[in-house]
Amino acid sequence: MDTLVIEVSYALDTFYFLMCTALVMLMAAGFAMLESGLVRSKNTVEILNKNVLLYGIACLVYFVVGYNIMYPADPVNSWIPGLDFFLGEDNSTESVLAGGEGAPYYSSMADFIFQAVFAAATMSIVSGAIAERMRLWPFLIFAVFMVGFIYPVEGYWKWGGGFLDQLGFQDFAGSVVVHMAGAAAALAAVIIIGPRKGKYGKNGEVHAIPGANLPMATLGMFILWFGWFGFNGGSELKIANIEEANAVAKIFVNTNMAAAAGMVAASLLARFLFGKTDLTMTISGALAGLVAITAEPLMPSPGLALIIGA
Amino acid sequence: MDTLVIEVSYALDTFYFLMCTALVMLMAAGFAMLESGLVRSKNTVEILNKNVLLYGIACLVYFVVGYNIMYPADPVNSWIPGLDFFLGEDNSTESVLAGGEGAPYYSSMADFIFQAVFAAATMSIVSGAIAERMRLWPFLIFAVFMVGFIYPVEGYWKWGGGFLDQLGFQDFAGSVVVHMAGAAAALAAVIIIGPRKGKYGKNGEVHAIPGANLPMATLGMFILWFGWFGFNGGSELKIANIEEANAVAKIFVNTNMAAAAGMVAASLLARFLFGKTDLTMTISGALAGLVAITAEPLMPSPGLALIIGA
Amino acid sequence: MDTLVIEVSYALDTFYFLMCTALVMLMAAGFAMLESGLVRSKNTVEILNKNVLLYGIACLVYFVVGYNIMYPADPVNSWIPGLDFFLGEDNSTESVLAGGEGAPYYSSMADFIFQAVFAAATMSIVSGAIAERMRLWPFLIFAVFMVGFIYPVEGYWKWGGGFLDQLGFQDFAGSVVVHMAGAAAALAAVIIIGPRKGKYGKNGEVHAIPGANLPMATLGMFILWFGWFGFNGGSELKIANIEEANAVAKIFVNTNMAAAAGMVAASLLARFLFGKTDLTMTISGALAGLVAITAEPLMPSPGLALIIGA
Repeated sequence: MDTLVIEVSYALDTFYFLMCTALVMLMAAGFAMLESGLVRSKNTVEILNKNVLLYGIACLVYFVVGYNIMYPADPVNSWIPGLDFFLGEDNSTESVLAGGEGAPYYSSMADFIFQAVFAAATMSIVSGAIAERMRLWPFLIFAVFMVGFIYPVEGYWKWGGGFLDQLGFQDFAGSVVVHMAGAAAALAAVIIIGPRKGKYGKNGEVHAIPGANLPMATLGMFILWFGWFGFNGGSELKIANIEEANAVAKIFVNTNMAAAAGMVAASLLARFLFGKTDLTMTISGALAGLVAITAEPLMPSPGLALIIGA
Repeated sequence: MDTLVIEVSYALDTFYFLMCTALVMLMAAGFAMLESGLVRSKNTVEILNKNVLLYGIACLVYFVVGYNIMYPADPVNSWIPGLDFFLGEDNSTESVLAGGEGAPYYSSMADFIFQAVFAAATMSIVSGAIAERMRLWPFLIFAVFMVGFIYPVEGYWKWGGGFLDQLGFQDFAGSVVVHMAGAAAALAAVIIIGPRKGKYGKNGEVHAIPGANLPMATLGMFILWFGWFGFNGGSELKIANIEEANAVAKIFVNTNMAAAAGMVAASLLARFLFGKTDLTMTISGALAGLVAITAEPLMPSPGLALIIGA
Repeated sequence: MDTLVIEVSYALDTFYFLMCTALVMLMAAGFAMLESGLVRSKNTVEILNKNVLLYGIACLVYFVVGYNIMYPADPVNSWIPGLDFFLGEDNSTESVLAGGEGAPYYSSMADFIFQAVFAAATMSIVSGAIAERMRLWPFLIFAVFMVGFIYPVEGYWKWGGGFLDQLGFQDFAGSVVVHMAGAAAALAAVIIIGPRKGKYGKNGEVHAIPGANLPMATLGMFILWFGWFGFNGGSELKIANIEEANAVAKIFVNTNMAAAAGMVAASLLARFLFGKTDLTMTISGALAGLVAITAEPLMPSPGLALIIGA
């Protein structure tokens, strides 16, 4: 019967990865709706093109090159990762049941697809800042390099067996991914504030943004919030025992509370500073809460998460 | 090996709560899209503000005050609940493995976050009716009292150890939550019918609603339908054995069938009464089916659910 | 303890069906947004009516008639299925724990609801082609026959115990469903290309489509992509052991990669052929990738899936 328990545990962890993958995947829709809802209508199609193609290209490039760099089967040395094209077979039942240190406890395909959508979402956050200053195709070529080389080489150094790993950089599995996203978070502030720039003229006068579609932007915010449960929750990388289940649950609590706190704080700020409720500011507050908590969703108590979010 | 099974079971129940949490959270987007799609465009931003802030505030207030009232660590007496701020630690592995009556079988953080989004969604249903007659900030202050005190005190009486509980009010775990939502359901009819009021003049003449965005309203309906699987399905509070898994599956069937039946019945009614297919009526029918079944999603056979929905 | 493991395994498989059900259900929103985003605004309400009612009617008809034809409790003979109205009770704990060949390993209600939303989604794919050439109510009556008789009778022949089954047509459980959808896939190409027809005049001149709502269409594509994880992933019909978990994970990888490849290929094609990036073409490419991979999401290696998608 031992065998059966291990199989069910393996299946639960795999299923957890796959559900988080689906949630993170939908973040692509969230970014597209948020950004297309906040720009002038003449730029809508450009922004949609960017978001849609970025997601597709990030998945492909990470699949063909990135993942193989980040977790090489045969690293060349601790600075330069190896490169194996495409994915091989998944874990055999024997290797899982053999147990022992390092035995796989979930499908490596599920790990890959979660990493792939995670990379794509991270790129959407980071790249937002530059997108408006670059034309579409140069931007997409830039994205190829980011997802194909820069991001996975950094990742390899830290947890694919690279030099940071060999120098004894031991870290809780999930938190590294999340710190990486944390770095992205700083940049993310730019997207969030970015879209509002066009709203103010050189002399501080307010221009209405014609065509801005606030229902779309609101929808985008909520979809991102939904997807962020998968983004942070999946970064724990395991759920099938008591401690890990508690950890994932805490991450859900902290993610939600940080977003709620960020939203309400931004809204009150706008209310008292400008004397009116500003929906764009409220939306930005929720997203700022989400990116702030992403840096470390597991450590803080929920009470602290609330303050971080705010 | 006993231990491992209990751990996997705990993890599965926790994961089930978290997935239902994500679905219920997305209902906030559903309400926002539905309502913003049905009002005149000049009211869109007001409605969005209301829905977005209501969700954020409900989460915060329930977290800081509501949950602690509803499930106090140390009740003052059976009428007045105690009040412990913030959440404590999650269940230890020891307490879970100890087993016995009352041993925790899922993460209390997962329970909290499900209760929090559930409270927020219930408020969205109940509050819809009043929202149009109150300005934004008074409405939000009202929401603070509802989520912070009225709802949790009622909840405490019933299942946090209060007087109803002590009087021997024994009830299947899920059905209480659901009855509470059932009370909301009556009110919910008001939102559903509400938005259409503006469509008719004093003398019964029909005014087109300029700017009403039917694709948005349709999207809102489908997102609510999707989220309702989590709202009703999660109210079972357990999935990790055969009977509970069957119960959750039946709730999914009944939820879906009631919505489908409500939709088709409303649509046929509109077709035969007014001689044309009315999309708003069809959408309202689906939602009426959902709120009707929420009163008791587990008891009826699917065949009956269909009739309830209709 | 054997018992407890079997219960948890049953619950996990049931939960997997229910989550896939929720994802597939949301595809109804995806179709509605995609199609309403691509048509002229005067046709929006018609298309929304079609999509909304199709989903409701498909669920009801499949429930009342279709499912009973497809899996009759008591088949009349191998050509003509029996017909038992409504669903019976779910599996008893005893029948599950009894084990042995043919013992149920997940809730039959969960199976039903997954089959029901699957049938509704398949109909949405197939019917797209005809919808524009038929008025609403004749179309809906046609849908009743499709979901109530034609689809389930074919299904019965293959896996409800019908003649193909008795002739020794042995097939891996999931792949049959999926082949059936594969047949639909060919037709689906028509929807995807269909909406663009109106864009070109008789002499090849391009007409702008007034009111086409590209953010909505983009959202529809992403929601469909999200739901397709449930559509293909759920077709495996089991996840709770190592091999099945690996298989479902591989299906997620292949589904995602085919969509990404289809999207990027179509976009590059448009770029090099017409010299500009065409968002509608990119969206169509992603959907073409999804329908192409649906024919057999498990067999190909992910590398091949990428090429199929393209």
